[in-house]
Amino acid sequence: MPPTEGPHQAVWISRRPESDVASELATSRADGGALAGIRLAVKDNVDVAGLPTTAACPEFAYQPTADAAVVSGLRAAGAVVVGKTNLDQFATGLVGTRSPYGAVPDSRRPDHISGGSSSGSAVAVALGEADIAIGTDTAGSGRIPAAFQGIVGIKPTVGVLDSQGIVPACESYDCPTVLARDLDMANRAMAVMAAGAPHRPWPADVWLAAPEHPVVAVPSELPELDATWRAAFEAAVARLEAAGAQIVTVDIAPFLAAAKLLYDGALVSERYAAVGEFIDANPEAAVDPTVAKIITGARDIPAHRLVQDRRDVERLRAVAMAGLDGADALLVPTAPMHPSLDEVAADPVGVNSRLGTYTNFCNLFDMCAVSVPFGTAGPAQFGVTVLARPFGDAVALDIAATVTGTTAPQDIWPSRVAQTEELVVFGAHLRGGALVHQLTDLGARWAGELVTTPKYRMSALDTVPPKPAVVRVSDGEDGAALLGHRWLLSPAALGRFLVGLPAPMQLGKVEFSDGSWRTAFGCDGAAAAAGKDVSSYGSWPAALAAGALG
Amino acid sequence: MPPTEGPHQAVWISRRPESDVASELATSRADGGALAGIRLAVKDNVDVAGLPTTAACPEFAYQPTADAAVVSGLRAAGAVVVGKTNLDQFATGLVGTRSPYGAVPDSRRPDHISGGSSSGSAVAVALGEADIAIGTDTAGSGRIPAAFQGIVGIKPTVGVLDSQGIVPACESYDCPTVLARDLDMANRAMAVMAAGAPHRPWPADVWLAAPEHPVVAVPSELPELDATWRAAFEAAVARLEAAGAQIVTVDIAPFLAAAKLLYDGALVSERYAAVGEFIDANPEAAVDPTVAKIITGARDIPAHRLVQDRRDVERLRAVAMAGLDGADALLVPTAPMHPSLDEVAADPVGVNSRLGTYTNFCNLFDMCAVSVPFGTAGPAQFGVTVLARPFGDAVALDIAATVTGTTAPQDIWPSRVAQTEELVVFGAHLRGGALVHQLTDLGARWAGELVTTPKYRMSALDTVPPKPAVVRVSDGEDGAALLGHRWLLSPAALGRFLVGLPAPMQLGKVEFSDGSWRTAFGCDGAAAAAGKDVSSYGSWPAALAAGALG
Repeated sequence: MPPTEGPHQAVWISRRPESDVASELATSRADGGALAGIRLAVKDNVDVAGLPTTAACPEFAYQPTADAAVVSGLRAAGAVVVGKTNLDQFATGLVGTRSPYGAVPDSRRPDHISGGSSSGSAVAVALGEADIAIGTDTAGSGRIPAAFQGIVGIKPTVGVLDSQGIVPACESYDCPTVLARDLDMANRAMAVMAAGAPHRPWPADVWLAAPEHPVVAVPSELPELDATWRAAFEAAVARLEAAGAQIVTVDIAPFLAAAKLLYDGALVSERYAAVGEFIDANPEAAVDPTVAKIITGARDIPAHRLVQDRRDVERLRAVAMAGLDGADALLVPTAPMHPSLDEVAADPVGVNSRLGTYTNFCNLFDMCAVSVPFGTAGPAQFGVTVLARPFGDAVALDIAATVTGTTAPQDIWPSRVAQTEELVVFGAHLRGGALVHQLTDLGARWAGELVTTPKYRMSALDTVPPKPAVVRVSDGEDGAALLGHRWLLSPAALGRFLVGLPAPMQLGKVEFSDGSWRTAFGCDGAAAAAGKDVSSYGSWPAALAAGALG
Repeated sequence: MPPTEGPHQAVWISRRPESDVASELATSRADGGALAGIRLAVKDNVDVAGLPTTAACPEFAYQPTADAAVVSGLRAAGAVVVGKTNLDQFATGLVGTRSPYGAVPDSRRPDHISGGSSSGSAVAVALGEADIAIGTDTAGSGRIPAAFQGIVGIKPTVGVLDSQGIVPACESYDCPTVLARDLDMANRAMAVMAAGAPHRPWPADVWLAAPEHPVVAVPSELPELDATWRAAFEAAVARLEAAGAQIVTVDIAPFLAAAKLLYDGALVSERYAAVGEFIDANPEAAVDPTVAKIITGARDIPAHRLVQDRRDVERLRAVAMAGLDGADALLVPTAPMHPSLDEVAADPVGVNSRLGTYTNFCNLFDMCAVSVPFGTAGPAQFGVTVLARPFGDAVALDIAATVTGTTAPQDIWPSRVAQTEELVVFGAHLRGGALVHQLTDLGARWAGELVTTPKYRMSALDTVPPKPAVVRVSDGEDGAALLGHRWLLSPAALGRFLVGLPAPMQLGKVEFSDGSWRTAFGCDGAAAAAGKDVSSYGSWPAALAAGALG
């Protein structure tokens, strides 16, 4: 069953023949889908038709007849499955060593762990053996290995991806993830994976962007980090601050308390519910001893203890979220250290537990997360995670881009799958304008420029600040083509923006050069007629720059 | 401890001195709050400062130092607490007989049960000993007794009322409720109880009204109902249909399957988590034998079974909600029969279980419900329940009003507590107009008439159908005061309405006779100028009626 070739044989549990992959890649490139020519690695607790799903337990293996929902989506867009990757058995662990298929070593320092449980997926991407990989994440399984391997891991809001065809680990908190070399690639993959009706609908007031100057919370204390790792984290904080973020501190205690509950309490009974009966019924199966101990140890936990622990999680969540009031996101080190294989072997449970310090609470608190590489901490690769509230995926993505020193993709995946509306603006709401905050405070995202059909007139209103009034000329009259900016925003944001709009501004339909009619700024006719005509400048900034307002 | 006076002594567990109540009522009437002079009964699992909370177990009693959140809200608005009411012990039961304070008899047929667990609360209202009563509801405890007592019971969406200060029964599914003689009074009380920040925020696309012609689902089968009860239910369906509702049938099987899980599976371990340790630790306590058996029987249920049952509930919920696709609400008989005290004594668990046929699934499926009286079924009072999706409280309220043959209150409680916006319309969106469905399809609620300041002009556009263009006149020009209608709608509904609005219509701010500026219809100036001036008619309907459009 284990693969036999290559220096990193522990990465893969099964691989498709290279010739099949090559031929599918050629077809994919010719077809030119959204993910044309992209090689995909799939964690082996996620179904791919034609390859066994083992969850890293050979005796558990079954032969799925269909792809998991996330896989079929990626394949339909052109991604080509390379193979199935090794994992901490039954996705139980953050180390990457708990597998009868072998411990997955770090891609650069083979005496260190890869991180897990999406160990093979992360290393496959780090080694360039795949462009994107599907992981899963309950306690940090999609983020810890991303950090150790110097790549990006997106753990979206639970429920926005379809979990059909994935072996459950701790079902209430499980989430498929994507791993990729950079944010752009991860974003592209997410847009595809998230297409289709979500199990959990996006809210009507979804945020589509981080504010220009986000408020980012950082932990009041940094337990488990040594001085080198602390310095690495502080550099990431400094990068954010230099880019215009406002940094505040949040009491990390309720987050850490919840993190402990994930394995130390009754929640682990979900893991027994997932695969416990299989383990009990198959004493001969190659079950990792640490995994077996964790899962079968949950067999007799009484249900009323689970009820109490869930109540404690809710209580801690309320306290933690109150602590984040006023903050757009939380920045933490993804992992607090990068252990060696020997360190894990010496204390498999203790090291694993410490690794989850900054990841375990996330899914319990229904947060979304983006883990990005941020240089090194000594010889280790260092990563930070930006966490946001449920459905704050776009916020986390934008702030993560800022941390990495890049620009977030303009076309982000939540705006592809959440319901969004469009508003075209002409004056102080143009990007860089004085009133843009009225849009960005509602989570609006800038989406490019466009020009009206030449049937409009722009006049300067005698307001403070001056505003342009755009009105359609009468039939037969001469008009101008005027520059506008598109913003995407949630339906609720558009409604609230309209409510906040003072007279004489109005919103209605405007015709653009491509023949489309879009929701855009207009103006009361009498007020517009009283203003000075500046149509000939073609745009409000040009009129201002030319001193047309006197 | 049990009260000693009166024919319905089992109703009350503790009563405040009549003189205290009378003096507080006088003060309340003088103060003139929203609930001035209203007498309030409080189920004895809900804290009232100064009275013991027993949950119908004398040995469990404690002396709360503060009112429960829902009580303090009602008191602050003027309601006066009369006393604490009897209940099925620990809110475990739908019968009203499971209490050491005595079985609560039906208010009209004393050999029949009151229904429970909010037994005393419902009977206190039915007897006129209180105007409103607080109940709680997990399996139907706020609805079953309402039906038997011929009154109204509102079980809102879980989480919109604060549960602080209430003894938990089955915490994930518990919900405070209100009981009142009619919908108006229940609505008034809910508006007060729901004020303040909800534990669970209202969504930005909340529905504020049922559609004018709602689609109402009824069960494909009516298990447990005899011919008389069936006829009573069919009369309620016919009433709705006659009032313009479209009736469809829904497969009731997944609803019934979930109902069974509430007591027959592992979910009952939540009840052990709530009071099981108290019962185990106090063998001398007066615990009702049926209640004790249910709760202590859950002591050793393993947690992984609870996980599986919760997963089953989720699976059933998805199937059930898919069955309701396209329907605005579900109509069911609240109870399928009205048993006698003897029938319950002979089979306390079996009868209770059958009573929950049409109520148990509600909270498991995160639905809201309004139970209203609908005549009789033979000698029994008959009630039906309108259920809607989470946060569909206004929809359920409107349809319940239609069932009762009354008009729903204009000022409904969800519009007081959810975030809503306002839009003023002048033409085909006036109530009764041809395009009103564009608003009501988004859940908008009509909210009255108003008139602009006399600075506007209305012209008839050459559109199909003709539409009025309302524009502000230039300073110094003569204008008219024009009639408008207010609609309340969610922020997302306003955004979506704007997006659907064709040129030349626009939305902006209009000045009204009370000096307010409100979001209202405007129009592109050139288009308006091309229309025929009909301002002198003062309203669009008047212009149409006068044949002003030729």
